Parts: sequence; C-alpha cells; structure tokens
Amino acid sequence: MEKPSQSWVKYLTLPAPSLDNHSGDLDRLDKKLSEQCGLQHLSIDLEAARRIPEMICRDRETRLRVTVFQDRRQTIITGLDPADQAAPVLGLALDLGTTRYVLQILDIETGTILCSADRKNPQSAVGPDILSRIHFTDKPGGAEQLQSLILEDLQANIESLCRENGLEPSRICNVALAGNTAMTHLFLGLPARWMIREPYVPACNEPGLCRAKDLGLRLHPRAGIYCFPNAGSYFGGDLLAGILFSGLDQQEDVALLVDVGTNAEVVLGNKDWLIGCAGAAGPALEGGVSEIGKQAEPGIIDKVRIDPASLEFQVQTIGGLPPTGICGSGFIDLAAELFRNGLLDFRGKLSPSRLPDRFELRDGTLSLRLVPAGASGTGRALRVAQPEFDSLIRSKAAMYTILETLLATVGLGFEELSRFYVAGTFGQYIDPESAISIGMLPDIARETFQALGNSSLGGATRLLQEPEALPVICRTLERLTYLELNVNQAFMTTFSAAKFLPHTDRNKFPSVNFFSMSETT
Amino acid sequence: MEKPSQSWVKYLTLPAPSLDNHSGDLDRLDKKLSEQCGLQHLSIDLEAARRIPEMICRDRETRLRVTVFQDRRQTIITGLDPADQAAPVLGLALDLGTTRYVLQILDIETGTILCSADRKNPQSAVGPDILSRIHFTDKPGGAEQLQSLILEDLQANIESLCRENGLEPSRICNVALAGNTAMTHLFLGLPARWMIREPYVPACNEPGLCRAKDLGLRLHPRAGIYCFPNAGSYFGGDLLAGILFSGLDQQEDVALLVDVGTNAEVVLGNKDWLIGCAGAAGPALEGGVSEIGKQAEPGIIDKVRIDPASLEFQVQTIGGLPPTGICGSGFIDLAAELFRNGLLDFRGKLSPSRLPDRFELRDGTLSLRLVPAGASGTGRALRVAQPEFDSLIRSKAAMYTILETLLATVGLGFEELSRFYVAGTFGQYIDPESAISIGMLPDIARETFQALGNSSLGGATRLLQEPEALPVICRTLERLTYLELNVNQAFMTTFSAAKFLPHTDRNKFPSVNFFSMSETT
Repeated sequence: MEKPSQSWVKYLTLPAPSLDNHSGDLDRLDKKLSEQCGLQHLSIDLEAARRIPEMICRDRETRLRVTVFQDRRQTIITGLDPADQAAPVLGLALDLGTTRYVLQILDIETGTILCSADRKNPQSAVGPDILSRIHFTDKPGGAEQLQSLILEDLQANIESLCRENGLEPSRICNVALAGNTAMTHLFLGLPARWMIREPYVPACNEPGLCRAKDLGLRLHPRAGIYCFPNAGSYFGGDLLAGILFSGLDQQEDVALLVDVGTNAEVVLGNKDWLIGCAGAAGPALEGGVSEIGKQAEPGIIDKVRIDPASLEFQVQTIGGLPPTGICGSGFIDLAAELFRNGLLDFRGKLSPSRLPDRFELRDGTLSLRLVPAGASGTGRALRVAQPEFDSLIRSKAAMYTILETLLATVGLGFEELSRFYVAGTFGQYIDPESAISIGMLPDIARETFQALGNSSLGGATRLLQEPEALPVICRTLERLTYLELNVNQAFMTTFSAAKFLPHTDRNKFPSVNFFSMSETT
Repeated sequence: MEKPSQSWVKYLTLPAPSLDNHSGDLDRLDKKLSEQCGLQHLSIDLEAARRIPEMICRDRETRLRVTVFQDRRQTIITGLDPADQAAPVLGLALDLGTTRYVLQILDIETGTILCSADRKNPQSAVGPDILSRIHFTDKPGGAEQLQSLILEDLQANIESLCRENGLEPSRICNVALAGNTAMTHLFLGLPARWMIREPYVPACNEPGLCRAKDLGLRLHPRAGIYCFPNAGSYFGGDLLAGILFSGLDQQEDVALLVDVGTNAEVVLGNKDWLIGCAGAAGPALEGGVSEIGKQAEPGIIDKVRIDPASLEFQVQTIGGLPPTGICGSGFIDLAAELFRNGLLDFRGKLSPSRLPDRFELRDGTLSLRLVPAGASGTGRALRVAQPEFDSLIRSKAAMYTILETLLATVGLGFEELSRFYVAGTFGQYIDPESAISIGMLPDIARETFQALGNSSLGGATRLLQEPEALPVICRTLERLTYLELNVNQAFMTTFSAAKFLPHTDRNKFPSVNFFSMSETT
C-alpha cells in the first residue's frame, strides 16, 4: 500500500538544546508539532514529559518519530521513539458489535493491515441483546461486570492475535473503536440506563479520546482510544464509521446507507446534508434468535433455490459444508423462493398445497422441512416454522417502512438514489433480487446496490490510516439530522401496508414476478 | 470577601432532555460551558461522563454547580455538584520551596482563605539544596523517592490541616502549585538532571494541568493540579506566580521584583516588556547553612542595632524570645551596623580595634561574639566568624551585580524604577537601609521598596480566586526574556567591583554614611 500523504506518525527534527533557548525538551516538541504539523491544543501528559528528556541529544539535533492522536478537542502524544526505531507503530481498529466484535491490527505509518480476528462479544453470556445488558447495569456492580467482560476478553484476544503474528501489544499506540451507542457506553463504563428510557438520551455522544491505561488495557503505556461519536442512543459510532467508509457524505448525488442488525440503521444524504434514523428491524435478520437462525459462518445456508418445474430445493452453505442452520440473508432467499413458487402467500403464510410432503403440522403450527435429517450437518432435519416467517415479515416490513419514511421526509423517491450501500455481513450475503421480491428492499436498478462489507471496521481502520478522516467524522456528526421513528405517527400506518409480500401496493414493485398458477400449467 | 465576578465555579442550567435533542448528557454540559462560559477545548474525562447522568433530572431542567480548571491548552471539569450543594468548593494553593512549603486552602467560589500551614520540605532529608537533590535523582529510584517524600508529606499535611479546620480533602478540586523549576520537576517526577548540565534545559517548562489522582494524591477524585510554568531551569513557576501577585506586568512604569533564596531571581519590566534573570546569591542569605544562620522563626535575630556612642549591641528577635540564631535579614542588619560603626572594613573584614572584647581569634579565624552565652537561648554564645562575612559579601555582591547587569541590559538606571518589590521572608524582614548600606540593594528612594510577603503563594492563591489570572500568566511567559548570567562576561567584571562595602565606586551610594574615625572623636 502506498504510504499516505498524512499519517498519525510524524518525523520531527529538534535542534540541539542551546543557551539561547530556555524552552524545556517537551516545550520544544510541543512547538514543533504546532509549527510543522499544525497540531494545536496538545495535551501534555506526564508519561511523555518523563520520557522525552532521555531521548534528546544534548550536543546535536534529535530526530524523533512521534505518534499523535486527536479528537475534536485535543491532540495527545501516544508513541515517542527515536526516528531510527525499526519496530512499527501499530494501530488497532475495533468494530464492537453486540454479538461479535472484530479487531484488526495495522501498521499506521504505512497503513498496511497486518492481521484481524472476529470474536464473540463475551457480554452475550449476560444478555444476548442490548436491552437485557442495559437492564443488567441496574444491578449492583452490573455495569462494572459488563465492562470487565469485554475489556478482559479484548486484552486476551489482542495478546493472542499479536503473538500469532509476531507483534507486540505494547507497540499499539492508537486504537479506533466503532460500536453502537450501548456497546460504547458499556465499554467505557458510562451509565447506559437512560438510553432506553424516554427521551432516550445517552450519557455521552462524543466521548472522544481516552487513555487505554485508564481502562486497564495493557497496550503502549500512552496508547489513546478514540471512540467514534454517536448521534443518539440508537444511532451509534458504528454507523458514523460506516458513513466515513462509504464516502456517502462526500458525494454530489444522494445515496443511502443501511446497516442491519437487531436495529436497522439508515442514513441518507450527500455532501450537503445527511439525515439518519434507526428502528427495530426484528430478530429474524440476526442469527442466534430463531430456531435455526445463525450467524453467517461455515455450514450456514446463505442461498436457497427452488426449481420452478420440479420444486426441488437447492441449498448453498458457506464453505460448502453440510447445512447446520440458516442466516438472515439465506432466510430472505428462502422466503423469496417460496413466494416465487407459490409456497408462501401474499400474507407471508406457508402454503403447502403444491408440495405437501415438505410441510408438517405440529401442535397447530405449520413448518417447512428445509433440509432432511439425512442431508443435515446436525443429524436432525432443519425446519422453519410459520412464526419465524411471521417474524421475518415484520422485520422486512419495518425495514421497508424505515426506508420509505426517511425518503418521504426529504421528499425523495427511491429511484433518485445514486447508490444504495448495504453494510455488514447482511450486505455481504444478501441477494438484492430476493430482498426486493419479498418487499424488503425497494424495487430499483440492481446495480444501485453495493455491499460494503464491515463498514464499521472499515471506518475505524481508515481513521487510523488517515488523520484527515477526523474532521470528516466531526463534520458528519455536526450535519447529521436524526429522525426519531419511535414517536413517528406516519411510520405505523406505512408499516401496516408493508406487512405483505411484497407490499399491498404492487405498483411499488413493478419488476417483481408474482407466482400465478398459470406458470405451473 | 466580595464574590469575584468570575470564578472557576460555574452555575449552569441544563434544559430537560427531550426527544428533539439527541445530545448526550455530557455533550449538553460541554455545549453549555462553551456557550455560556466561553470555555473551549474541554477535555472530557470518563469520571465526569460516568457521574453526570445520575445528576440530570429527566423531567425538568437541572441546575448544576460545575467547577472547571484550565491551562493554556485545555479546560477540564473538576467539581460537579447539584447547584444546591452546600459544601464549599475548595482550592489548594501551594508554594513549594526547596526548604519549606506553604499550603493554603480557600473557598474558591468566594475567594475566602480558610487556613494555611508552613511545613519543612521533607526532601531536605535527602539533600539540603537543589543541586544535591538533582544529583540524587541519578541514583536508581532516586527520583521516585524524592517524589514520594513530598507527595506523602503533602497528603498528610493536607489531611491534618483539613481535620483541624473541619474541611474535607475530597472537596479540594483545584490545586495551584508555584515552585521553582527543580521542585516542580521533582514533584511531577520529571527528569531533572538536564537542568544542571549545560545548556541547562529542563524537561518541561509548561507542564500545565495534571490530575491529582495521577500523582497518587487523594483529593477530589477529579482534582486538577496546575503547575505555574517555568521560564527556564533557574527561573521557576514561583517567580511567575510572584509576577502575577505583584502586578508588575500590568503597570505602565518600569518596576523590578527580586526574590532571594539560594538563587536571586529578578524580573524587570512593565506592561510592554519583561526581562528576567537568576543567579547564585550564595547561602549566606538562606538559613540552615552558616553556623548560626536560620530560617526566620521565633527566637531568631531579625534586627541588630549598635549604639554609635557606647558600641552596645541591641538584638531583636522574632517573638521576643531569647536569641538562638540569626536570619539573612538580621545578618545584613548586623553587617550594616558593624560597617557603620567601623567594626567591619571596606573589604568586609572584621575590624576589632574599637571593641576588642567582642572579638575572638581561634585557629587563625576571627569571629564576633554577637550574643554572650548568658543572654542566648541556646546556653552558648552566638558567634559569627569572618568566613560567614566573606560569604555574605559574595552574596551581596552577586545580588547587586545581578541587578546592575539586568538594568544595564535595557539601558536603565536604578533611579528610573517606579517600584522595587522584594518577595519572600527576606523581603518581609529586611531593612532596606541596611541592605543599601552594605551595597546589596541600590541606593534609591527608600519608599520605592515594597515587601511582597510570600508572593509565590499569593500568585497561586490568586489563580484559584480569579480565572482571569490564567491568560495573564500565559502572556507573562510569552513576553518574558530570560537573560543567562552564567555565561555573561560583563557579569564577572561587575561582580569584582561589587565585593566591597558598599562598592568600589562610592558614587553609586551617595546616601550611605561611611564610618570615619572623626565621628567617634
């Protein structure tokens, strides 16, 4: 990778101390950083002040490699080495999700990504979702327990990732953390209880920089952690990082970014304006909740095809292993195929008549046998029951309604979007065609859709690579208007109309082929 | 005391959180501090972020009492209380001297001084002077040991002072520390060794704010410590505080401030320019070094008079107790009186001929018996020997030369000074008439001299009372030119001429009466 023009790592030449200049060692460094690098408001810390004199040559000029980090308010010195220090300056990008977290280590001088790892958020042991964890903080010591869980797990994983890759945790100077508002609060030990109580105000949207050691993390002794700012309780730093990564806020044309998890977080705008909102998208799109629903991982079904003539099912799994479950995007694929082939009706109800052998009725609940026991990786048949489809319908209706409400707020139609970014694992595996078929995503030109991958991690990584990203983040936060859907009346009306496949108003989905019995004859 | 118009203690009203504003609790406080109080660059700390949500009323506006503190670079929140909190916000002013330190506690909201105490600097056990302590830091663990000595002693003294006065150490939010460069370095644990090696550059002139807890001091959990900046290794924060206290930097007319300890630190200037220098004034002016030399305290001789006719000695002690020693100003008084009465000659040598009974010759060294054993508080005669007078002559010559060199640098004569401030205990007890007689202070109108008392403590106290003092300190530091005397050639020549009583050039001291044998006849 080409060395970026700007970096958090600065090379400075300090003239030899002289009788003509009574500035202290650190004062001269401070002045140089201000004059040469334009870094104002340097917060001096005692650690750096203690270390610098031993690095200064008394009889000739001193070349230093100084690593800095910033938030909107201040600049701090993190790394401080002689200029010929060979060991790299490391950065850690952290995408802190409710279910999983991803850590990625890079050489922040060259911008090169060195290694990464994906881990389960250990707070899941306390509660699977945000709500249960926030309630847990009301118990004595609850917040401290949740904070320790993630910090200790993170420390251990940083150490093992470093060990595997021949790196030193003590060389990690700058950490960029992008997480939702709740995860950021729990990580920093900030009170989270007010986030879930009207008017849903968090303790702090913009915590900015803190020192790793103040959280008990053992990285570089002066390592700084920048937490991406939140725009509100339901619009977190992960999405701010996603906006940075997508570049949506820099474009002339209007684009949209959607990040789907338990909540669907959506932002719409261009270089002039940005509007965001978030709403419950339901658990159907997230793994770990429905009976066979899982995170996208090897053995998980991510694609389903039904032969229109034979009605034979073809399932594709990640890694090609025998199927053990289905992820959100696979589930959408399944629903779309069932709908296309008349096995799921307009209301989202299973319709066994064309293929009765695939269906079972137990205790009054109809279910589809997706994979027979013999072909399954678990030894048991994989079934999807009607309630899971009901849940999917609610989720897709919520998703579509959020999108429609947001666009209506600014008087735009879907066809006016230049880009439709889909973030995360969901965006990576989803087939827009299927999502459109069930009316989850709008019926627009397919090439408009663009999967971003882990945009939260991508944004955090970019901040470590490019100091110029910081003012971009700050400007995004300033410009972003947040639309509160929880109290939006129009939302509920629109939502009811969206609870059909693909929609009560078929004109909204002109390109979707509807099943008719004539096709089979 | 009248409540100052500005204070570090701010009363803020935060509107009730609402659905229309997704700012976090701390973000709204930050904004309010910026809008209402003009405080920019607020460094958010996690302690404050954790505490604020529990103080915010969710259904109505919240009135808060917020205590802040600043340095040139940043603003920090120290105290955070409901507006109706009755307990005062305390500040601690600290004059950290090499031999003694003075702590003073005040209510920083009203500016009222509540109590103070004067303690021995426990680092004296390691070394009596700056040089020996800095050398001690070269030993393994030496710096840590010196730092612990002062921090632990300070903590204990704060606690006992608070206990005696019914105050809580945990309510001390803002600490202002004024000390010389070496004491400030040792206090903060900064490397001091380069201060005494050419080109005499300290680790840091402007450490600014740090957190008390980072030094292990147990005050308010978020207490901030502001260290007055140094202008160089030999021109410390104590003098910056003194300049602030004297107001010299605000005046139209040129004034001079001198602070005498082991070093004589001098600053000259007005509202437009400031020039400072420091030089070794010798130990004769500081207690604890010469045989009978002591700090000014009860029983110590601070004034000596010799009857011109009878040559009878009259000594005055602090508190009127039987004499146990003599302090610097008393010693100057003694030398002046001896000189006036022909008992000390032009070269500073004892001249026994007029009063042989008072003098003794032991091992070739002549000494004066100042107080006979019977009148002494120690049971032994108090004597002053020729070497101590030699030392005094060197000190007074250094003092005068420093003053003369500094004025010459800017082309001013002593008569052009509007004020001559004398700081510290020395200034409090010294008789300008005597100091002029021996040629230590210039022969100018006596009313020009003004004793400042403990101006270092006074400056530290003022910063706690008046936030407006901060920009004044910063501006002083920017404007102050430091004159290095250690390498000044003119200095040595002038110095030699000043080693006579009062001077080789008697025209410089027109008002001084010289002893002549004719007076006695």
